[in-house]
Amino acid sequence: MIKDELHFSNIKKVFPELAIECKGSMETKFNGVCSPEIPRENALIFCTRFNFIETALQSNAGGVVVAQKVFAEVCARNSGKIVMSSPNPELLMAKVINHFVLASPPRDLPGTGIHKSAVIEASAQIDPTAHICPGVVIGHKVKIAAHVYIGANSVIESDSEIGEFTTIHPLVFIGPRVKIGTHCEILSNSNIGKEGFGYAHDAMGKHFRIPHQGWVIIGDYVHLGACNTIDRGTFGETRIGSGTKTDNQVHIAHNCKVGKGCLLTAGLRMAGSSILGDFVVTGGNTLIAGHTKVTDRVHLAAQSAVSKDITESGDYGGSPLLSLQQFLRMKSSMAHLPEMRKQINKLMKKIFPDEAP
Amino acid sequence: MIKDELHFSNIKKVFPELAIECKGSMETKFNGVCSPEIPRENALIFCTRFNFIETALQSNAGGVVVAQKVFAEVCARNSGKIVMSSPNPELLMAKVINHFVLASPPRDLPGTGIHKSAVIEASAQIDPTAHICPGVVIGHKVKIAAHVYIGANSVIESDSEIGEFTTIHPLVFIGPRVKIGTHCEILSNSNIGKEGFGYAHDAMGKHFRIPHQGWVIIGDYVHLGACNTIDRGTFGETRIGSGTKTDNQVHIAHNCKVGKGCLLTAGLRMAGSSILGDFVVTGGNTLIAGHTKVTDRVHLAAQSAVSKDITESGDYGGSPLLSLQQFLRMKSSMAHLPEMRKQINKLMKKIFPDEAP
Amino acid sequence: MIKDELHFSNIKKVFPELAIECKGSMETKFNGVCSPEIPRENALIFCTRFNFIETALQSNAGGVVVAQKVFAEVCARNSGKIVMSSPNPELLMAKVINHFVLASPPRDLPGTGIHKSAVIEASAQIDPTAHICPGVVIGHKVKIAAHVYIGANSVIESDSEIGEFTTIHPLVFIGPRVKIGTHCEILSNSNIGKEGFGYAHDAMGKHFRIPHQGWVIIGDYVHLGACNTIDRGTFGETRIGSGTKTDNQVHIAHNCKVGKGCLLTAGLRMAGSSILGDFVVTGGNTLIAGHTKVTDRVHLAAQSAVSKDITESGDYGGSPLLSLQQFLRMKSSMAHLPEMRKQINKLMKKIFPDEAP
Repeated sequence: MIKDELHFSNIKKVFPELAIECKGSMETKFNGVCSPEIPRENALIFCTRFNFIETALQSNAGGVVVAQKVFAEVCARNSGKIVMSSPNPELLMAKVINHFVLASPPRDLPGTGIHKSAVIEASAQIDPTAHICPGVVIGHKVKIAAHVYIGANSVIESDSEIGEFTTIHPLVFIGPRVKIGTHCEILSNSNIGKEGFGYAHDAMGKHFRIPHQGWVIIGDYVHLGACNTIDRGTFGETRIGSGTKTDNQVHIAHNCKVGKGCLLTAGLRMAGSSILGDFVVTGGNTLIAGHTKVTDRVHLAAQSAVSKDITESGDYGGSPLLSLQQFLRMKSSMAHLPEMRKQINKLMKKIFPDEAP
Repeated sequence: MIKDELHFSNIKKVFPELAIECKGSMETKFNGVCSPEIPRENALIFCTRFNFIETALQSNAGGVVVAQKVFAEVCARNSGKIVMSSPNPELLMAKVINHFVLASPPRDLPGTGIHKSAVIEASAQIDPTAHICPGVVIGHKVKIAAHVYIGANSVIESDSEIGEFTTIHPLVFIGPRVKIGTHCEILSNSNIGKEGFGYAHDAMGKHFRIPHQGWVIIGDYVHLGACNTIDRGTFGETRIGSGTKTDNQVHIAHNCKVGKGCLLTAGLRMAGSSILGDFVVTGGNTLIAGHTKVTDRVHLAAQSAVSKDITESGDYGGSPLLSLQQFLRMKSSMAHLPEMRKQINKLMKKIFPDEAP
Repeated sequence: MIKDELHFSNIKKVFPELAIECKGSMETKFNGVCSPEIPRENALIFCTRFNFIETALQSNAGGVVVAQKVFAEVCARNSGKIVMSSPNPELLMAKVINHFVLASPPRDLPGTGIHKSAVIEASAQIDPTAHICPGVVIGHKVKIAAHVYIGANSVIESDSEIGEFTTIHPLVFIGPRVKIGTHCEILSNSNIGKEGFGYAHDAMGKHFRIPHQGWVIIGDYVHLGACNTIDRGTFGETRIGSGTKTDNQVHIAHNCKVGKGCLLTAGLRMAGSSILGDFVVTGGNTLIAGHTKVTDRVHLAAQSAVSKDITESGDYGGSPLLSLQQFLRMKSSMAHLPEMRKQINKLMKKIFPDEAP
């Protein structure tokens, strides 16, 4: 596919709200996008952090994009580079690379159509525009929509459906009755829709699996990282809302509901039937206890443990979970614990001398 | 396979100790089991939590199973539903679904017998009743017993043995010399019997792998979740006892011993040569240090870290590890730390005014 | 391959600095190496821990290797066993097993050469001495050097390079533009070079993927455990230094740099653009925040969280991160928190009786 030429005029034409001003020639073509740390002649640098600006200006790159509030200052000092302003250089970068630079989505394996080594049940419906890579195995009544890519050696069990333009990377397992929306991406070695960790126990403590007959529903524009494990519902569904993105090694148990637009960082463990609202952000190794509910727009610091409902939006951290402000104050007190203990002992000895330590 | 009809008489005939009383017709047939949140006409609801009873009674389901102690009360108020009592509705549900509802074990991929795309060493012994899915690779001298299912694209290295009725899901790696018992289930993308993380170090700090020549032994009725990593012994074995169940993303290092009937929640990391007794339960992201030993019937709260032996059964939590009661008391004190620090400063200033802060 | 005979004279000839003295016949041949817990007649035991010596001496093994400082004492008490001394029995064990015992590297699947079920792009270059197992899929322009082993059903995307003598175990995903050095080992179900977790956000909180066009560079003699996730750079590279070893379930995000000779234990999560120096050791479930830098020879206790740069080598622990000594002191104070709180209340009541609690 032939891409538009990458210069300020075209950027502004396609993304008028994100490309504001330009100092220098508006039609000078850039040969791509680069980072300030690895500059390339005639490429364009997006200064997503202020401390990159200096490096960017001293590099041999052809142009820089900076935040609007520093545009005038940067124009005043720079020597010959094309300078553009944006209210959100990082967002503009993401959009410019997708529109002007990338040849295609990240679909990177041999052949097109259905590879002859793929094993596909006769009752499966595969759109003729889909690309099924080598070694893929697809169960009965699976539906694969238009422009879908199924990476090498992935396995999709019966009755699942994959929506248009979705990319399943290699070595992914998709269990039965999983519905994945459009424009999603499931990264390598992830597991969607396997049976969950649910057991009944007899009086002797023996465990009996509760068969999980439910399914998983994944919205549109969802990205799941590598080595994710999203279990299906016991009855009914486990649900991931549209626009949610997960990092690697995220675990979401049976019957969880994750809202729209969440960002879930590596090592999250959501226990069964827990609920996250929309636009929730979790830090590394966060835990969510079973049957708890976290409301919209909650941000959880790394290593947080949620053990009861969070009903107010805001920033939280720690275990016990506190407001972020309280958590940080508590954390900074912890280093003083040994000293506090000594002082208390000293005070006790002075004030209550008769009490044995 | 034709299943028994699902009504109270049959349930009581098959599970007499778990199905006690019935109000209403004992031969009215249910069309399956459902949850109170997704009720279905003429289906049966097991009220595994008391707060489900109200919803269940107001649903259009055909019958409800409740705990014995609320049976009389529920019978008194309900309007026309069949009501049964059980000492353990959850356990009865697990058994009823398996016996009356499920068509077959969760074995969900094309074909039967050995798929023609599987690659199997001539010296491997595969029982004729086993089902080997597409893309499976099996090494030399592997033994696959009767009624075993090996999911698509799984890989089994040499000299391993899989016992009767065991299900290996797709994309599982089983290393050499692994022995898996009967009726086990190993979920997708798990790794059993790879080499462990064991190194010797020279004076310069360079690391040299200690070759791991051991193996893994897994008992009967063991379930391992997705993305588990169970390493083989350095010498000798890593062992998982019968009836133990692991959640997703559990890591068990070389030479660990896990007892019978344990329940190990997502994110557990057991370091080398650590030991869990029988019926141990671990919460999310628990750590067990190398060479430590945890006795039978220990329950560890989420985020616990075991750094020395636990010799008494009971509930524990935290890092440092405390009894659960102490841990919860400690945890609830933590939020007060900043205030405690202020009070100590105030006291010190009053009582020891001459001491610099 | 015919191995040298395993006796003291040969051990000393091959590893003169690690095999010092011998009591008993220097040419008596051992039939292998065993552990004290599973002794074998005529085998050799390396006493890597002092508490193994007694067991070893009472076993039926043919010989024992002990640390130099206990050699005289052990010689004095033992009855008939051959005793050797080494400054580092564990290191000698690792080297002896590799040199005298192991038949070959851990390469354990059917066939040699390129298996006929492998799917390889015409533009890929595969050295004739490489072994490509069944079901492997290799993208365009991939280069596989001499003596490389690619395990069954692994997938390698375009433009990647695998160096001499490297072993890729089964079910591994290697993304585009990954360069792996020589003598490396990548264990099963690991993911190297997938796109990272990097998003730009618009004013409404919607997330837009920043396309990751970078790559991964892995040095020589690197071992990566199972279920690792090493993401490629946004621009430029993610780098793992030579001689570094990772445990299972380690996550290293885009643009991280890991130095040489690190030992990274299970559950590590390194966020984007963080840096570890050389010979860093991390305990279980450690977190490294994005854009932080840890200098050489830092040791981090389990569950540590690094949130700012560490500029001095040494031992650290906790969250907030403290020196190991401070951390241990703080940790041991924590159990006393409830008691401390009571004492403070008592003191406050006595000294400031007018203040409401």
